[in-house]
Amino acid sequence: MALYQLLAEEVSAQIQSGVLRPGDQLPSVRRMSSSRRISAATVQKAYQYLEDRGLVSTRPRSGYYVKARLGVPLAEPATPDYSGRVTTVDIADLLFEVLDSIKDRTLVPLGSAFASPMLFPLSKLAQELGKSARRMDPWRTVEDLPPGNAELRRHIAMRYLQSGIKMAPDEIIITSGATEALLLSLQAVTSPGDLVAVESPSFYGALHAVELLGLRAVEIPVSSRDGMDISLLAKAVETGNVKACWLMANFENPVGCLMPVEHKREVVALLARHEIPLIEDDTYAELFFDVERPPPAKAFDLNGGVLHCGSFSKCLAPGYRVGWASAGRFTEQVRRSKLLYSIGTNIYAQEALAQFVKHGGYEYHLRQLRTALQNQQASMLDAIARYFPSGTCVSRPRGGYFVWVELPQQVDSVKLYRRCLEAGVSIAPGPLFSAKQAFRSHIRINCGHPWSADIDRGVATVGRLATAEEIIPAV
Amino acid sequence: MALYQLLAEEVSAQIQSGVLRPGDQLPSVRRMSSSRRISAATVQKAYQYLEDRGLVSTRPRSGYYVKARLGVPLAEPATPDYSGRVTTVDIADLLFEVLDSIKDRTLVPLGSAFASPMLFPLSKLAQELGKSARRMDPWRTVEDLPPGNAELRRHIAMRYLQSGIKMAPDEIIITSGATEALLLSLQAVTSPGDLVAVESPSFYGALHAVELLGLRAVEIPVSSRDGMDISLLAKAVETGNVKACWLMANFENPVGCLMPVEHKREVVALLARHEIPLIEDDTYAELFFDVERPPPAKAFDLNGGVLHCGSFSKCLAPGYRVGWASAGRFTEQVRRSKLLYSIGTNIYAQEALAQFVKHGGYEYHLRQLRTALQNQQASMLDAIARYFPSGTCVSRPRGGYFVWVELPQQVDSVKLYRRCLEAGVSIAPGPLFSAKQAFRSHIRINCGHPWSADIDRGVATVGRLATAEEIIPAV
Repeated sequence: MALYQLLAEEVSAQIQSGVLRPGDQLPSVRRMSSSRRISAATVQKAYQYLEDRGLVSTRPRSGYYVKARLGVPLAEPATPDYSGRVTTVDIADLLFEVLDSIKDRTLVPLGSAFASPMLFPLSKLAQELGKSARRMDPWRTVEDLPPGNAELRRHIAMRYLQSGIKMAPDEIIITSGATEALLLSLQAVTSPGDLVAVESPSFYGALHAVELLGLRAVEIPVSSRDGMDISLLAKAVETGNVKACWLMANFENPVGCLMPVEHKREVVALLARHEIPLIEDDTYAELFFDVERPPPAKAFDLNGGVLHCGSFSKCLAPGYRVGWASAGRFTEQVRRSKLLYSIGTNIYAQEALAQFVKHGGYEYHLRQLRTALQNQQASMLDAIARYFPSGTCVSRPRGGYFVWVELPQQVDSVKLYRRCLEAGVSIAPGPLFSAKQAFRSHIRINCGHPWSADIDRGVATVGRLATAEEIIPAV
Repeated sequence: MALYQLLAEEVSAQIQSGVLRPGDQLPSVRRMSSSRRISAATVQKAYQYLEDRGLVSTRPRSGYYVKARLGVPLAEPATPDYSGRVTTVDIADLLFEVLDSIKDRTLVPLGSAFASPMLFPLSKLAQELGKSARRMDPWRTVEDLPPGNAELRRHIAMRYLQSGIKMAPDEIIITSGATEALLLSLQAVTSPGDLVAVESPSFYGALHAVELLGLRAVEIPVSSRDGMDISLLAKAVETGNVKACWLMANFENPVGCLMPVEHKREVVALLARHEIPLIEDDTYAELFFDVERPPPAKAFDLNGGVLHCGSFSKCLAPGYRVGWASAGRFTEQVRRSKLLYSIGTNIYAQEALAQFVKHGGYEYHLRQLRTALQNQQASMLDAIARYFPSGTCVSRPRGGYFVWVELPQQVDSVKLYRRCLEAGVSIAPGPLFSAKQAFRSHIRINCGHPWSADIDRGVATVGRLATAEEIIPAV
């Protein structure tokens, strides 16, 4: 056996035994070469050998990483059926129970909607926040009222431009997170009783907004790969009753699916033909694992009918509550609503983010965050494959920090949620993501936390309980 | 003439000629005594003589101040008629035009809803904000989700307690300013189509909330002295249709009226008998000019039917967007709504305010602010008396920073607003404060800015234009 093969076998054994875990970085070529006193070329060859065998993967300017063990690959969850049924939305107590469980530090946070706060540059942001507050002209308390901080809006527009998306700073309204932006946008284009097309499964925030504004929802199925089924959307739209559409084209919550560019273009054109505004939740777009930011549906908006919403909460600054809407021809309406909903957004948080984005370090942070999330997802997929009952399916998002798990049909995810909670683990049961309380055997799992023995045990617990006899469907 | 009388006459002449202006502080007894080489007792006697003649007033531990010239006292505006008419609320473009005019630094801000940012301890707050951001445990991004920062909620509850108002920290939910708190509160207790009793004139934010939630309003007149007419409220309530009541018992916006304690008790009891929730906007309560904080309606709430809303925006920290709701038996509903409306409120702003209130300096700041606002109001009342057309009536609030002006009937305040804007002065025309677009000859004037030649000229301009021929009622 050649020297490079010996080294490769040694690393391979470490991977098989679990010493090296999915997402772990291999020692750099230089370090391995000097510690083993073998040539860099030999180490390089060994690593490439492992890569060819699918055990490790390389990332540009970063090195080699242990891949998720796809020796036990799981299928992706099936696309749900389309009933065409219209639903009056009623958010259940369950949702608040799950949201509250997030605050409990002792729980393994697989049900959380947030990534670990440790993944964010909070101390650098703190410096900017302190500086901003000390330096800002007091009159900014008035001048930064909606649409908000001009510098921040300019930098947000510039970031879109760097991704090839044209957006004028004047179209952007700063809000208290994307949640507020989405609510204001939906309100700007609907009247009580209107019908809104949403994804199925869909983000519970969308369902809440629909409920709050007295609207009704028609749920359009998403596939784990491509997102919302555009032919079914077309079918719903052709009834002539749909007054708005709510869409997460990039890394949909909870499935994580990514709508292909051509589908985005088609959806925007379809809705424009019927003069139906599109509310776009693009909160997770910056958390992509591939080469570049996937374009939002907004990129294909020709007549200002897309109300695009983004946020810093998921990619840079949790706790700051700064997001935005770019509301096309509804910009003035959204700006006015913002003023009357909450007057303005904290002006120091706006300035701190403007300064952080301006002074650099944002791209560096994002690269690190994306790598961490991708590794964590790999570990999670691996653990799910090892611990969950056979027949489990799971989505493999190309970004974000959720995976959507379809458990064997006899598993009741609400009961499973309660048993897991008793065992110190939170999960997000499927019915949270449907106005019809569907997805009773699905759960959303958060991969936003650095891999640890606790998380591994948490996943094992969920797997064990999902296999236990007690977890049977409700009558 | 005795020496003290000579001195008194000299000061009196300075007041008459405008060298000393309403709100100005007289030189201290000690300083006057040493500069004039007369005894302190003589100066004291002169000042008391002026006080007896109503030209100056004394403030404990502060000295003597020139009083507003009540030689030309204006009557208070009449209480509007009650029509009992129910109105579907429609917020006009005019409101946004006025709100936008606030941002223009070159305008004299008599139409602004904000006090001068210079009156607030922004640099001390900035220090707390910087410190908070540097020190806070990253997990607080999750733990400080609604109901919000525990320390801040405790300090808010303690402040109420110091004023004899019982309020548990657990009832308090931190929001993005009082505006959000009020909206969430109103939403918690109403369904679309419901009828809400509001004041007339009333804060446009209340009218917006009613419009946004698809509610209807019945406007109950307020008197300049005592606020909402409780017998008319009783009449409206007895129809059985009113589902909620929105009230500013303390320093109502725009009139500035203060509801007597007995009326507050009666309103709360009346509404409780009919099981009608009360939404209380108590935003200006800390800005009292008398001896102590006037109690909110909440102080008389026996069954948790009062949803009380407060804020730091008007009394301490403009631009921070931190307020709260203490929602009685609706607390859990409001907490949940907050979570789904905007997830949370900026956690660093919450912590900075908790630390500021805790470390002291808040009472000191409030005392200074109240004195400044009282002096500014005195100067404003004086200027209005001098510059406005005869027949003008004006309210004399015992707190806050608005006065409500009733101009002669032939004045159209919307036209006046446009003419004033051309002349570089903003005012808030009366129709903003009524769903029925009433109060066409009223304006709200902001006294929240330190008196200056610019402000004086601004008031003179409004007075001159209100007298000009062009300002005639719309056909």
